[in-house]
Amino acid sequence: MLSNTRVVVWGEFRHEKADPKVGAIYPLGIHGTIADFLRRDPDLDVSTAWLDQPDHGLGGDVLEKTDVLVWWGHIAHREVSDELVARIHRRVLEGMGLVVLHSGHYSKIFKSLMGTTCSLKWRESTDKERIWNIAPHHPITQGIGDYFEIPAEEMYGEPFGIPAPDELIFISWFTGGEVFRSGATWQRGNGKVFYFRPGHETYPAYHQAEVQKVIVNAVRWARPTVRVPDSCPNSPALEPLPEDPEAAERSTMGFR
Amino acid sequence: MLSNTRVVVWGEFRHEKADPKVGAIYPLGIHGTIADFLRRDPDLDVSTAWLDQPDHGLGGDVLEKTDVLVWWGHIAHREVSDELVARIHRRVLEGMGLVVLHSGHYSKIFKSLMGTTCSLKWRESTDKERIWNIAPHHPITQGIGDYFEIPAEEMYGEPFGIPAPDELIFISWFTGGEVFRSGATWQRGNGKVFYFRPGHETYPAYHQAEVQKVIVNAVRWARPTVRVPDSCPNSPALEPLPEDPEAAERSTMGFR
Amino acid sequence: MLSNTRVVVWGEFRHEKADPKVGAIYPLGIHGTIADFLRRDPDLDVSTAWLDQPDHGLGGDVLEKTDVLVWWGHIAHREVSDELVARIHRRVLEGMGLVVLHSGHYSKIFKSLMGTTCSLKWRESTDKERIWNIAPHHPITQGIGDYFEIPAEEMYGEPFGIPAPDELIFISWFTGGEVFRSGATWQRGNGKVFYFRPGHETYPAYHQAEVQKVIVNAVRWARPTVRVPDSCPNSPALEPLPEDPEAAERSTMGFR
Amino acid sequence: MLSNTRVVVWGEFRHEKADPKVGAIYPLGIHGTIADFLRRDPDLDVSTAWLDQPDHGLGGDVLEKTDVLVWWGHIAHREVSDELVARIHRRVLEGMGLVVLHSGHYSKIFKSLMGTTCSLKWRESTDKERIWNIAPHHPITQGIGDYFEIPAEEMYGEPFGIPAPDELIFISWFTGGEVFRSGATWQRGNGKVFYFRPGHETYPAYHQAEVQKVIVNAVRWARPTVRVPDSCPNSPALEPLPEDPEAAERSTMGFR
Repeated sequence: MLSNTRVVVWGEFRHEKADPKVGAIYPLGIHGTIADFLRRDPDLDVSTAWLDQPDHGLGGDVLEKTDVLVWWGHIAHREVSDELVARIHRRVLEGMGLVVLHSGHYSKIFKSLMGTTCSLKWRESTDKERIWNIAPHHPITQGIGDYFEIPAEEMYGEPFGIPAPDELIFISWFTGGEVFRSGATWQRGNGKVFYFRPGHETYPAYHQAEVQKVIVNAVRWARPTVRVPDSCPNSPALEPLPEDPEAAERSTMGFR
Repeated sequence: MLSNTRVVVWGEFRHEKADPKVGAIYPLGIHGTIADFLRRDPDLDVSTAWLDQPDHGLGGDVLEKTDVLVWWGHIAHREVSDELVARIHRRVLEGMGLVVLHSGHYSKIFKSLMGTTCSLKWRESTDKERIWNIAPHHPITQGIGDYFEIPAEEMYGEPFGIPAPDELIFISWFTGGEVFRSGATWQRGNGKVFYFRPGHETYPAYHQAEVQKVIVNAVRWARPTVRVPDSCPNSPALEPLPEDPEAAERSTMGFR
Repeated sequence: MLSNTRVVVWGEFRHEKADPKVGAIYPLGIHGTIADFLRRDPDLDVSTAWLDQPDHGLGGDVLEKTDVLVWWGHIAHREVSDELVARIHRRVLEGMGLVVLHSGHYSKIFKSLMGTTCSLKWRESTDKERIWNIAPHHPITQGIGDYFEIPAEEMYGEPFGIPAPDELIFISWFTGGEVFRSGATWQRGNGKVFYFRPGHETYPAYHQAEVQKVIVNAVRWARPTVRVPDSCPNSPALEPLPEDPEAAERSTMGFR
Repeated sequence: MLSNTRVVVWGEFRHEKADPKVGAIYPLGIHGTIADFLRRDPDLDVSTAWLDQPDHGLGGDVLEKTDVLVWWGHIAHREVSDELVARIHRRVLEGMGLVVLHSGHYSKIFKSLMGTTCSLKWRESTDKERIWNIAPHHPITQGIGDYFEIPAEEMYGEPFGIPAPDELIFISWFTGGEVFRSGATWQRGNGKVFYFRPGHETYPAYHQAEVQKVIVNAVRWARPTVRVPDSCPNSPALEPLPEDPEAAERSTMGFR
């Protein structure tokens, strides 16, 4: 029997408590709502964590036992400890999947994996977002048609300060006149990374069926194939080499 | 008249002083040797900097006035200040070119732009390196034939922990049986990044004509087209939007 | 003195003669209008060719002497001879640049270089097109701001049946609700290919300054660095090989 | 119960009959040997086809019912009918997987999907090939370690005239001093394409466990997610458009 995929949904869980409107939309918290619909997939073992827990909820061996991490953050990126970010970063490069949502574009972990500004245009207003499916063959878009619409969302616009994605999955159209690469993948080390745009806290995007479908698909797609710890080995030759007159001397040097 | 390209060649300049053999190969320092052959190109204004200078030689407005930075480091990556790395990183994303040489694969600046381990296999021995030109059309390979050889070099082998390059330029063959993606480019923000493998301190690679040709080509290729400071602007709509009943309220919130 | 870049602008030149409205917009023909503004660049030697000329205007040694070919076709793709398409294809792989405009997405030459359907959604209506600059650092976007608008254009929408571009340059927003990857580059062999969306024959897009700027930039960007004829050589070993007991026999076989 | 993956292994089946040495290595034919080890995977329904069958063995509805096609050809690429190549091409773009082996780099179907020369260096001699795993996370490399060796193989060397792969999987080292991108993937439309280098007819590579493992992995990886027939639809607007005074006239035009 195959073991299940262990998923952790991480949320800031601040807006929901500070702003009654957000709390009314997400009474379980954003992380709780996402965990809720992921749990309908019997192949996923889903738990949650949030900023104000000890070690931001990701202490002990939690990360070591996580296959896919889902990340939502917005107003408190700087409060996430650098030590945790380094551990998540290492886990992704070893093989853990990472699904970054919405304002998570500015999270420390996403920026450290991209190596770029991750900046964008934005506007909180009354835009409709129409998300076009650019990759109908991709596992992440299965069950999604040519496009779907979110009736009201924060606008994110280009240019988006990311490295060229390995795969461009979605492009968004906004009423106010902008476009955005709203779904994209990157391989980083042995781990898969997916960024997905929707999910401003004042709109109910995570209650929408298509958004849920994409996130479930993405979590399944991001499951690890391997776990490879980092190493930078001194490797003996596989073929005969010419004699090395300085071999003895070298063996005592040991840079690196 | 076009202004010249301002190039800074940065070196650790430690091996050359600590190890007489290295000092004998590079009496000007590795950075000095590289600057020397770059200066033969009349379009380049070349200066140098090294680790043990104040601010590692890159204080004041030096970086602000640099078009292309060439980086060689090896045993002292950790001594480079995080503050300087952040400034170089910002400058690359704005548009500055960066040419990273050899053991610079493990420099803070290269790792922060790649977002990955940048690890590899290695061996100091008697390998010959044959560098195959995979991209004969590319500006970086002009004047280089199908391949060239370095009679003795440190071996670097795959897997190399980098994100998929935007352009793969060179692949190396080593006597001992390994291969390596020894020349590759990445666009990061508005800046161009080129990694080039050769240049172990105990071998005279930077005195070899083909290696020099590649580095001159790379510096020319990496010149900025633009300089775009980072911004993440709140952007007004370009098309009419539905009325926003909460507009007044929003205007007092000001997240971000 | 550097020799100039030899540019040939190819047009179908059918709509302009058959439809008085199109003829009124492009009295020089679409190809003639494009050639006209390219000629303002003193580094370009510009000529034109069209479908109903002998050999479609590209006979003799014209292609052999062309550095960059600009292609506009629409209703007569099938009339372009396969022999000519094969010659253009070979020239691109050798190093010639190719700029494909608008309905040229369905030309034989573009499809043969892409290897895909090159299909898309379309609508002739009253859409405005807003073209967003996704690559502010790229030579093709210099002088273009964050975006520019074409007041009325045919709509092209996703999904667009192309291989993932090497560089995504522009994404278009249309009034009717669609998005499109409207500027993209591909390296094919030693030649550069740029596809640019605008230019339906019933609208005056090629009279618009921003469209002209992009095409001039693209032609300059697409200039060859090399000219490498195709070969698939039997190559002697560069390193000693074990004895080959069947060497004599092999030398008489000569497959391939 | 999920339906099985329907795999067709296509071979030229000429060398095996014309050359007793090849026949002795592959008494089932190359296609038969490959089919044989694929059949050990209970999820695969495997059949074979070859050049000298009517319709090259791919007539009727065979292709319509094929999920993944494996292709080995060498001396008779030109004998494969253009009509069949067009049908295979269409099926790949709809979603069928394609695994191209060894000298299939010069097959009509591979060249038409790549759009490039697909040329390379080659030598029939006594080279050993060491195939390095560049993508340890990839489904195609599971069960393969850092590298594996083929004791004797035809050499293929760079430059290899392909478009930049979507994913570079393997790089080969040859005794005689060359390197080669020996495993690579491309998405073409809705179909996955994998090229894998080994398999010269005079060597027993397809009897080797690692080669078999890679091919089984590749066939599983290449399975379709969707089947999307080509279309280029005239699409009504999704958002209100300005009035179109020429709408009636347009409706009678119907280019395209």
